[in-house]
Amino acid sequence: MNFGVFGTGIVGTTLATKLVSQGHKVIMGARSATNEKAAEWVKKNGPKASQGTFEDAALNSDILLNCTKGEATLQVLKLAGEYNLDKKILIDVSNPLDFSKGMPPTLTVCNTDSLGEQIQKQYPLTMVVKTLNTMAAPVMTNPRMLPGFHVIFLCGNDANAKEIVGDILITFGWKKEEILDLGDITSSRGTEMLLPLWLRIMGTLKSGAFNFNVVK
Amino acid sequence: MNFGVFGTGIVGTTLATKLVSQGHKVIMGARSATNEKAAEWVKKNGPKASQGTFEDAALNSDILLNCTKGEATLQVLKLAGEYNLDKKILIDVSNPLDFSKGMPPTLTVCNTDSLGEQIQKQYPLTMVVKTLNTMAAPVMTNPRMLPGFHVIFLCGNDANAKEIVGDILITFGWKKEEILDLGDITSSRGTEMLLPLWLRIMGTLKSGAFNFNVVK
Repeated sequence: MNFGVFGTGIVGTTLATKLVSQGHKVIMGARSATNEKAAEWVKKNGPKASQGTFEDAALNSDILLNCTKGEATLQVLKLAGEYNLDKKILIDVSNPLDFSKGMPPTLTVCNTDSLGEQIQKQYPLTMVVKTLNTMAAPVMTNPRMLPGFHVIFLCGNDANAKEIVGDILITFGWKKEEILDLGDITSSRGTEMLLPLWLRIMGTLKSGAFNFNVVK
Repeated sequence: MNFGVFGTGIVGTTLATKLVSQGHKVIMGARSATNEKAAEWVKKNGPKASQGTFEDAALNSDILLNCTKGEATLQVLKLAGEYNLDKKILIDVSNPLDFSKGMPPTLTVCNTDSLGEQIQKQYPLTMVVKTLNTMAAPVMTNPRMLPGFHVIFLCGNDANAKEIVGDILITFGWKKEEILDLGDITSSRGTEMLLPLWLRIMGTLKSGAFNFNVVK
C-alpha cells in the first residue's frame, strides 16, 4: 500500500518511518516539495521513502495520515485538494491544541464539536478515522515499549475503514483486544478532550512514555 | 470525623453509606431538611446517619463532599453558606454535565475553566479537592471490584488537604500508588474533560464498571 503522510514533525516522521520499515511506499507531504525535514527523512529511509507537496502526497497514496498540528490541519487538507482526498482513508492523528495562550495549551475546538468531525464534515467522501492521537509518538508505533495491556481508540463513520486501520495498528504491535472502537466520528470529541488530562499526567510523571488502559 | 454530603443521588448515597460503615458521622444535606431520599438513607444507615439542609450539613461537618449535579453545584454551595464552608475541605465529586441538549451530554464549562476552579475561586478559604469524578459510584468506594491496578486523580491547591483526602481514599480500598496528584485545582479541567470519553467508553462496553489506568 502507498501511504501519504501530512506533517514532518515527530509524529509524522515516526509513523512514516514505521510504515517504510514494513515495506510500504511512503510520501512525506509538506507545503514545499523540497521541505528540508522531509528531505532529511527521505535520505535516511531509502528508496521507498519520497517527498512532495501535500497535493503530491494525497494524489499518489491510497491511505493518508494527518500528522499536522491541529491549528494547521484544515488548511493543509485544502492544499492537498479535495479531489485527492475523495474516497480515501484519512487517519487523523491530530489534536486541536492551541499553544498561543501559553502552557498548558487549550483546545481550539471541543465539547460540541471536534477536529475529527470538522474534517469529516468538510470532506464527506473521505473516510476519516481518528486514532493514535491519545499518546506520544514512540508509543504509537511501539506499543510494546509499555508493559501489559493498554488501549487505543478508533472513531469513524465507516466500519470498513476502521477495520483496515485496525489491521494497520496490529502490524504496529497493537493487540486486537487493545483497539477500542468508540463509534462514529463524533466520538473524536472524547479522545481529543483527553489531551488536557494527558498533558497534566505527563507533567506529573515528567515523561510522555505512558498510555491509558481501561480496566474492567 | 464528621462528614457532610451534598446530594442524595447515587454518588452521594454511595459515599455517605461507605463513610457511615466506617464509623463516621454523616449528615446528608438536601434543599429540604426532610428530603425523602435522605430520610430513606438515614433509616437504612443507623444512628450515625442524619439529614438536614445543605446549611445544616456544612455547619456540622469537618469535611464536605459535593455530590450534586454540576449544574446545581454553585447554587447548592450558596445555600450551604460561605461561612460554613470556610477553612473546610470540600471534596468535589461533581462534573459539569449538561443533559439539556440530549445524549451524550456536553460540559457546561471546560477547556479554559472548570467547575473545580469555579468553586475554588468563589470560596477562596475552602480547600477544594477534586477527585472521584472520573468513575462510576460503585468503583469509588470499592476500587477492588476491578482487577489489578487503576488510578484516581487528585487536584487541588492545598497539599495538606490532598493528603487528608488521599488517606480517606486509602480507607476506601485505593492503593497509595493508585492516587495520582495532578497538581493544583486547574488540573480539574483535565479530569472533568475526561467525561465525554468516559461516556463513550461506557456506551461501547455497555457498562460503567470500569476505570482508567495509566500504564508506564
